[in-house]
Amino acid sequence: MTPIDAASHPFDDAIALIPDGPDRFSGRTHPAFRNMIGPFGGAIAATLLNGVLSHPDRRGDPLALTVHFAQPVAEGGFSVMSRILRSNRSSQHWQVELGQKDGIAAFASIVTANRRESWGLTQAKAPAAPAPDDLPAFPAVDGFAWTANYDMRFIEGGPGAPASEQDPSRTVMWIGDRPFRPIDALSLSALSDAFFPRIYIRRPALVPIGTVTLTVHFHTDAATLAGLRPGLLLGVAHARHFGQGFFDQSAELWTADGTLLATSHQMVYFKE
Amino acid sequence: MTPIDAASHPFDDAIALIPDGPDRFSGRTHPAFRNMIGPFGGAIAATLLNGVLSHPDRRGDPLALTVHFAQPVAEGGFSVMSRILRSNRSSQHWQVELGQKDGIAAFASIVTANRRESWGLTQAKAPAAPAPDDLPAFPAVDGFAWTANYDMRFIEGGPGAPASEQDPSRTVMWIGDRPFRPIDALSLSALSDAFFPRIYIRRPALVPIGTVTLTVHFHTDAATLAGLRPGLLLGVAHARHFGQGFFDQSAELWTADGTLLATSHQMVYFKE
Repeated sequence: MTPIDAASHPFDDAIALIPDGPDRFSGRTHPAFRNMIGPFGGAIAATLLNGVLSHPDRRGDPLALTVHFAQPVAEGGFSVMSRILRSNRSSQHWQVELGQKDGIAAFASIVTANRRESWGLTQAKAPAAPAPDDLPAFPAVDGFAWTANYDMRFIEGGPGAPASEQDPSRTVMWIGDRPFRPIDALSLSALSDAFFPRIYIRRPALVPIGTVTLTVHFHTDAATLAGLRPGLLLGVAHARHFGQGFFDQSAELWTADGTLLATSHQMVYFKE
Repeated sequence: MTPIDAASHPFDDAIALIPDGPDRFSGRTHPAFRNMIGPFGGAIAATLLNGVLSHPDRRGDPLALTVHFAQPVAEGGFSVMSRILRSNRSSQHWQVELGQKDGIAAFASIVTANRRESWGLTQAKAPAAPAPDDLPAFPAVDGFAWTANYDMRFIEGGPGAPASEQDPSRTVMWIGDRPFRPIDALSLSALSDAFFPRIYIRRPALVPIGTVTLTVHFHTDAATLAGLRPGLLLGVAHARHFGQGFFDQSAELWTADGTLLATSHQMVYFKE
């Protein structure tokens, strides 16, 4: 359960849920996580995941999360309903819905799993990057309150950073919660949605956009995350295709010492 | 609706649904699409998508599909329930469940959207590949009946094909339905799951595996797919990370002339 108290981190406040009956919680949007229209999608993704992590029947750690952003979440209160669609020996499949008075605004399907030691290998490579201390922190963006909650230091493909010649839709950046908060699956869910939309990197023109669906895959268990040294994560994002009003965006989140924590994939609407 | 008749393609037979009340269909597993345990996951993914495409209220074309394989589907009949969780002006968000007598075996969340002309650009690059006619078709694999329904011609990272030195978890192959069937979102969903599990490419040892969840992003509308020239697709698959009993796998499906049709991302369980 995420307690609400004056000393808590703004991110924990934003995703806090209060039990409100069996399989049911209540929450509210947080002004510090406002986006242009409705709340920052990453905070909604984390809130839906919190609907599972806060549930007394949950076993195992988050393995995969797919969020659907069906409608902008209106400012104010909402309900979160979490239920298990199927359990098996080592995993649980959950469905979580965020409802407001006019219906379901967002929902998610989530897998939690008991992870155990096994053979392992990281095939992907983290890009080379200068240390975060050698880079300026990007200032918060007016009209996008949520950006003040993240420490972003662009290396490639960001505002004020050069684009890659190989892949001009790619961004490499250090990123983390501001102020620092220990990394867990909740913060990774939100960080996965904190990369600026690829269309703004590839073709700078502020057309309206909206993430339709976001999938996050978690590569480590909660115990591994709890043992991480504090610090910013190295984020990499790129797009494969833009067309017919949508583009895709994939991202990786790495620790400074090269552990891949999460990968994510989204489809984003854009208007011209 | 997918009609069942003697002249239909085996894939259409395997994913056929018969209306069985409001929001409800019935279907059955098909012996030609058997996997080692239960049916080929790609056929289940396509069946769930068919539960939306066959629904009278559906508008727009598939944009994204996330399937959860919660339990092996038992041989025999099943029900498919499809419902809209939220509609908005240009898209619909669906939830589809495949049930058998002991509960939900698989489910999916699906977005359909009205796509329109827009600025576009393909950032990803298809790998260079010899023409499919210059390559041998891979024979069907004993004990995996579904493989007989696919024409697979390996270029890199397959049985009998060299692995890439850059990325030894990568496969490049020509792939298509056998016999040929016009490409649509249904066949793309199944093809997205037809790549051999990355762990078998990276570390050849036939450990038990199972896809837990598969996400497919569609990059073209149905009209574009209907206009494609017949032919095999160029498939590329790779993994980023193996560890704690799971690995991820991403894939792209390209036409021979370089149109990116779909990308997919899955998390797969493995046992040692």
